[in-house]
Amino acid sequence: MTTFGARLAAATRDRSALCVGIDPHPHLLRTWGLADSPEALRSFGLTVIEAAAGRAAAVKPQVAFFERHGSAGLRALEDVLAAARGSELLVVADAKRGDVGTSVAAYGEAWLRPESPLFVDALTVSAFQGTGSLARVFELANEHERGLFVLCATSNPEAAAIQLATTDTGETVAATIAREVAELNRAASMSMGSIGLVLGATIEVRDFGIHLDSNTPVLAPGFGAQGGRLEDLRTLFPTPAPVLAALSRSILGHGPDGLVPAIDEAVATVSA
Amino acid sequence: MTTFGARLAAATRDRSALCVGIDPHPHLLRTWGLADSPEALRSFGLTVIEAAAGRAAAVKPQVAFFERHGSAGLRALEDVLAAARGSELLVVADAKRGDVGTSVAAYGEAWLRPESPLFVDALTVSAFQGTGSLARVFELANEHERGLFVLCATSNPEAAAIQLATTDTGETVAATIAREVAELNRAASMSMGSIGLVLGATIEVRDFGIHLDSNTPVLAPGFGAQGGRLEDLRTLFPTPAPVLAALSRSILGHGPDGLVPAIDEAVATVSA
Repeated sequence: MTTFGARLAAATRDRSALCVGIDPHPHLLRTWGLADSPEALRSFGLTVIEAAAGRAAAVKPQVAFFERHGSAGLRALEDVLAAARGSELLVVADAKRGDVGTSVAAYGEAWLRPESPLFVDALTVSAFQGTGSLARVFELANEHERGLFVLCATSNPEAAAIQLATTDTGETVAATIAREVAELNRAASMSMGSIGLVLGATIEVRDFGIHLDSNTPVLAPGFGAQGGRLEDLRTLFPTPAPVLAALSRSILGHGPDGLVPAIDEAVATVSA
Repeated sequence: MTTFGARLAAATRDRSALCVGIDPHPHLLRTWGLADSPEALRSFGLTVIEAAAGRAAAVKPQVAFFERHGSAGLRALEDVLAAARGSELLVVADAKRGDVGTSVAAYGEAWLRPESPLFVDALTVSAFQGTGSLARVFELANEHERGLFVLCATSNPEAAAIQLATTDTGETVAATIAREVAELNRAASMSMGSIGLVLGATIEVRDFGIHLDSNTPVLAPGFGAQGGRLEDLRTLFPTPAPVLAALSRSILGHGPDGLVPAIDEAVATVSA
C-alpha cells in the first residue's frame, strides 16, 4: 500500500493522464440501448471499467446518476466499485460532498474507509464551508492512504462570481483554497501530495491567481463538449504534479462498442 | 398539493418553528444503546419521527450518517422517509448537494421527484459553483412543489473566509447568494417562496450584509452546543418569512425516552 499521491503519479506515468467518467445519465443510457434502471447503471459501469482498464489511469463515477435511483442505484455503484478494485484503475468518486464536524467525517467514512462498500481511491469534495471544515476528511484520507480533490475553479460560467470573489488575504476564493490545499500537502510531507484540486479545463489559472503547486495533483474536467482541448493539457496546467484529464461525454457518447477506440484516441492525444 | 413555501408557512404557524435533526452518528447510536448498523439507523429515524410528529414542523435527516453505511444505509433512510410521509412532518434532507448540468439535475431527481424512493419536501444544496449552477434543481423544485435550502452563511468559524469574500458586485458571497435566491422567489411569484437559505444561528446577518427577504424562508442550524440560543430565534432572524430552528444533538442526546420532553421544551422556548 502506498499513498494516493504516489499511486496517482505511478498511474499517470505508466498508463496515461486519462480519467474516464462513468456518467450513466438518462440520455446516454438511451444511446447505449439500456433501460433507465439500477441494473442498467451496473452494466454501464462494468462496460466502462472493462474498456478503461490498462488504458486509463482512473475512472470517475458521477455519484449523482447512481443516487438518482436511490439505494438500488447506490447498490449498483457498489458493484461497479468492486469490479474497479479488481482492475488497476484508480477510482475517483465524483460526489462533491461537503459539510462540517461529524457529518463531513461520516462522508469521509463512507468513501475512504476500507470496510465501506463505497470504498474508493479518492473523493471530490466542496469547501463552501471553508477548507478547514474538511479537516476530518483530510485526516481520514491520510489514515487510509486515500486522496481528495477539492473543488477550486470550475468550468461553468456561473461559478466565477463565488470562485473569483476576494477573500481577506486579497486572494480569490479559488486561490485561497489552492494555497490551503498546497499547505496541507506540504504538512503531510509526502513525495507527492494526496489532496488535489478540481480545476476546469476551460479556466485560466492565472485569472484566478492560482499558484500550481508542484506537490498538488489536479483533476481537470471540462474537455470536449465543455470547450477544453485535450491536446492543451500540459500548457493549461504547467505543473510537474499529476494532472488527470477527465473525459466523460466525449468518450461515453461513442456507445459501448466505440469505447475502446475512443479511449485509445484520447490516450494518444493526451500522451502526444 | 401546495407549494413547499406554503406548506412550510402553515407548519411553522400551526405547530412550531422546530425542525428536529435525524443525526444517527456513531456516538449517539451508542448513547441510545443501538448498534452501528443500517437496522439501527432505521430504528433511530423512526423513533425521532414518532416523537416529533404533531410537535415539530419538520425533521431533517443528515444524509451523511446514512450514506456512511452505503446502499444499506440509504435503504434505511428510504424507510424513514416513507414513515415521515405518513405523518404531517415536513422532511428536509440535509445533503448539501451541488454540481452542474445533468449531474445536479440528477441530484434534484433523486430527492424531489415523487417517484423517487428518496422523495422529500426539501433538500439542502451548495452553491459553490454559483447559484446559477443550481438552475435545473430550482426548476424541478417548482415543478414538483418542493423546496430547497441553499447554504448561505454557516456557523462554523472556518466558513468565514469564503462566505465573507467580496464578489464583483461589492457584496459578500453570502449576500450575493441571498439576493439571488430572493430574486428567484420573486420570479416564481408565490405567496411564500420555496427556496430558502441556510443561515447559522451563531452568525450576524448584518456582518455578512445579508438582506432578509420577506418571501425567503430560513433554515437555521447552530443552536445548543454550537452556541445559538433558541430563545433568540426571532431577534436573530427578524423576517416575516418562516424560520426553521434546526436542533439535533441538544434533543437527540436525551435518548429515545427523553425525546418527547426535550422536544416539548424546545417547542415551548421557540414559541414563547
